[in-house]
Amino acid sequence: MQTRFTEAFGIQHPIVQGGMQGVGLAVLASAVSNAGGLGILTGLTQPTPAALSQEIERCRAMTARPFGVNLTVFPTMKPPPYEAYAQAIIDSGVRIVETAGPKAMTLWPMLKAAGVKIIHKCTSVRHALSAEAKNVDAISIDGFECAGHPGEEDIPGLILIPAAADKVRVPMLASGGFGDGRGLVAALALGADGINMGTRFCATVEAPIHDNVKQAYLANDERGTNLIFRKLHNTARVAKNTVSDEVVRRLAMPDATFKDVAELVRGDQGRIVLETGDVDAGIYWAGQVQGLIHDIPSVRGLIDRIMTEAETIIGGRLARLVVQTQTAA
Amino acid sequence: MQTRFTEAFGIQHPIVQGGMQGVGLAVLASAVSNAGGLGILTGLTQPTPAALSQEIERCRAMTARPFGVNLTVFPTMKPPPYEAYAQAIIDSGVRIVETAGPKAMTLWPMLKAAGVKIIHKCTSVRHALSAEAKNVDAISIDGFECAGHPGEEDIPGLILIPAAADKVRVPMLASGGFGDGRGLVAALALGADGINMGTRFCATVEAPIHDNVKQAYLANDERGTNLIFRKLHNTARVAKNTVSDEVVRRLAMPDATFKDVAELVRGDQGRIVLETGDVDAGIYWAGQVQGLIHDIPSVRGLIDRIMTEAETIIGGRLARLVVQTQTAA
Repeated sequence: MQTRFTEAFGIQHPIVQGGMQGVGLAVLASAVSNAGGLGILTGLTQPTPAALSQEIERCRAMTARPFGVNLTVFPTMKPPPYEAYAQAIIDSGVRIVETAGPKAMTLWPMLKAAGVKIIHKCTSVRHALSAEAKNVDAISIDGFECAGHPGEEDIPGLILIPAAADKVRVPMLASGGFGDGRGLVAALALGADGINMGTRFCATVEAPIHDNVKQAYLANDERGTNLIFRKLHNTARVAKNTVSDEVVRRLAMPDATFKDVAELVRGDQGRIVLETGDVDAGIYWAGQVQGLIHDIPSVRGLIDRIMTEAETIIGGRLARLVVQTQTAA
Repeated sequence: MQTRFTEAFGIQHPIVQGGMQGVGLAVLASAVSNAGGLGILTGLTQPTPAALSQEIERCRAMTARPFGVNLTVFPTMKPPPYEAYAQAIIDSGVRIVETAGPKAMTLWPMLKAAGVKIIHKCTSVRHALSAEAKNVDAISIDGFECAGHPGEEDIPGLILIPAAADKVRVPMLASGGFGDGRGLVAALALGADGINMGTRFCATVEAPIHDNVKQAYLANDERGTNLIFRKLHNTARVAKNTVSDEVVRRLAMPDATFKDVAELVRGDQGRIVLETGDVDAGIYWAGQVQGLIHDIPSVRGLIDRIMTEAETIIGGRLARLVVQTQTAA
């Protein structure tokens, strides 16, 4: 299937792996690229720019196809050396970067100057348009369904994708809530040129996380997430578990602040969940697409199935609906 | 376009008008049915069962095609005479009823016994399955995007529709967030057999509401709604205006109760908005699909456009994507 996105980024299938802290390692990104999608390494999962350079080399050794690197730029008290990470990407010869976060634009000039193509992920039409005006190469429009940060406006893909498609001119990925061929066709019908998947790729054989976590994605349904930090204007969708339930409970108290939950959301706990498989050890990302995940296929098996399902829906079920009308007329 | 829904309910296009308090009058329902969709009178918009009988007669005089009646059954202190309304529908010869609300099932036996086909609208997979087990004829699965009551689980259509399609066997409508041909194709791809539209039908020539309100649907974008009553476990999506903003503000206070907003949400204020066009006179329904509404067409113009757009997407853009793949292979 060729779309404006596959053509612009030189890939076979319009399926991109989202940047995911702790999960976007070479083993997963290379599997996605080898299967014809676009694999994405998560830059800040590596402790240093030098370590990212090594991970890029590892990925390159595992696939001859294009892959990218995610850089999510949040304003923090003690920021990581974003520009050094960006320079490591440039120096490594990677030519695709997915950016996200309110400060991402600070990195675009140096990336663009080096010939890197930028996919910018955002959660509103107006942010998509301001990124397009600054010459990003593609938009990944991220709906309320997503794992991670859906923003504060709560617009699902069914509305956000066509609203963005009405105005965005560059190729556009639909992100948040995608996990099968039905979703891919829906995204294409709504005006996107492909899909970005995060949670669904976590439930694959190659995802470098503990099998208990993969099983949790299967066991939980679409109701198995919590939105936390709404009160702090930094909403995040995470897996529903004893820890995120407690975060929700504490932040629902009058006058609650981040201090009341700080011990529950220390940065290393998500990593501990993914590594040890203790799914109640801390908060970890999960999207509502959990409700559509029923197995743990290989990455190639998943991508092939999505493409076959999408083409069957388009050429079969949908085509027959129209043909019936024409016959009846 | 023929789907399982159009075949089961004897209509031309898989587009159903949602039951809408104050809006679902004969003038709109008949226009939808005459244009090949399924128009729906809103039962409780009529003050008495006898008045509903008259409105049904009025609608029948305006269309020879099938139409239905909505009955939304909420548990209230002083309930309207639901069974008398249902009997009026049965006696009038209407053979399609859309039910909604947690107490809807109390009416199903008498409706089924009279040969009425039931479309039950609900916001979760498990409620859809329990309705199916009680022999309703179709499910209208209503996503987080919708105007009115989205439930408390906040699952958008992109997830809810395929999750329901995986389990529901009777024909299924997708509801919440639909307004154009892109959405119709997305719904069909996700596994629905048609769409239900409310807000979009409010912004038509025939909708019996003040033009100022129609203009407000155009002026507001996808962010122009508020979710109110979450704290009361009776969440409702309404248009964002000075009144709903104030309801949100007051209910955000610690220990706030319904009493704190009762004066703002008196039952007749929505009617006053629709009749006078003073869009800040009270709360009134609006879905996130406002972001996709850019004109006020006739009902027939709208339905024809949606069908043409849907068929063009299926037979054009989507079909070409697949053909390209086959050529390239």
